Amino acid sequence: MAELHPQCEPLAPLLGTWQGGGTGHYPTIDDFAYTEELVFGHVGKPFVSMTQRTRNSVTGEPLHSEAGYVRALPGGELELTLAQPSGVTEIHLGTVRATDDGLVIELRSKAVGMTPTAKEVTSVRRELTIEDGTLISELWMAAVGHGDLLHHLRGELAKQD
Amino acid sequence: MAELHPQCEPLAPLLGTWQGGGTGHYPTIDDFAYTEELVFGHVGKPFVSMTQRTRNSVTGEPLHSEAGYVRALPGGELELTLAQPSGVTEIHLGTVRATDDGLVIELRSKAVGMTPTAKEVTSVRRELTIEDGTLISELWMAAVGHGDLLHHLRGELAKQD
Repeated sequence: MAELHPQCEPLAPLLGTWQGGGTGHYPTIDDFAYTEELVFGHVGKPFVSMTQRTRNSVTGEPLHSEAGYVRALPGGELELTLAQPSGVTEIHLGTVRATDDGLVIELRSKAVGMTPTAKEVTSVRRELTIEDGTLISELWMAAVGHGDLLHHLRGELAKQD
Repeated sequence: MAELHPQCEPLAPLLGTWQGGGTGHYPTIDDFAYTEELVFGHVGKPFVSMTQRTRNSVTGEPLHSEAGYVRALPGGELELTLAQPSGVTEIHLGTVRATDDGLVIELRSKAVGMTPTAKEVTSVRRELTIEDGTLISELWMAAVGHGDLLHHLRGELAKQD
């Protein structure tokens, strides 16, 4: 097990496996509920890997997944690279700051890549908060003709041993 | 275990865990040798997930990693989304075709995303070949001032049980 890179120290509370559930909505789709697993790991370099999978709460069918890397720069600055099977890649800039019992990570997309058959996503905002041992993951997006960042997802996850 | 999506059938030989080694070179760096693990999975949807990790052959230190998704369209057309901890995202278009005892996947980047602190990568070509039970992974890139696609990596991997 590698030692955590000093620039990743502010991200330390994320490391491990988180499970929970959430709800999603967007003007173009029916509301839905999902279960989520979110895994953060590191190899001693100045980044944290991230993989996410969600399933339909009712049927158990796989819904979304994504995989990427949170790059930790000095001073709590962050960069995120992310790939999705929906044909979308995201590059975010943001920050992490420590709170009394957790952290707050705020990220805004700087660039969104799309394959020719992907649905249009123009902008994404992500927020990860850890408080009271709970990880709250929220996402806003501007997509499929909606130019404003609209709230899309909110999940609450607990750390697994 | 979900059933493989029909559009993923041409990618079936990839599924599983592959391990092996390779060599890398580029005009701007010293030649290097690496060990590699490449894992392909699926959840029954029309894409195959892909995660890769390499280590320095001599020291065992982690080198590169990447994670993404190969989207299988009808007729052997492919789209790839990929995220890297180096601050780079890639979107590729390509094809898969079956051979007598394996497959050939050819991919060319359509878009490369970069975080502000990433090294400049302008274009990438990837080729994955399975023949005689060996997966050969090759990569060419135009990067850091070199405008042409130059050969960068060649790995040979064997399927693990």
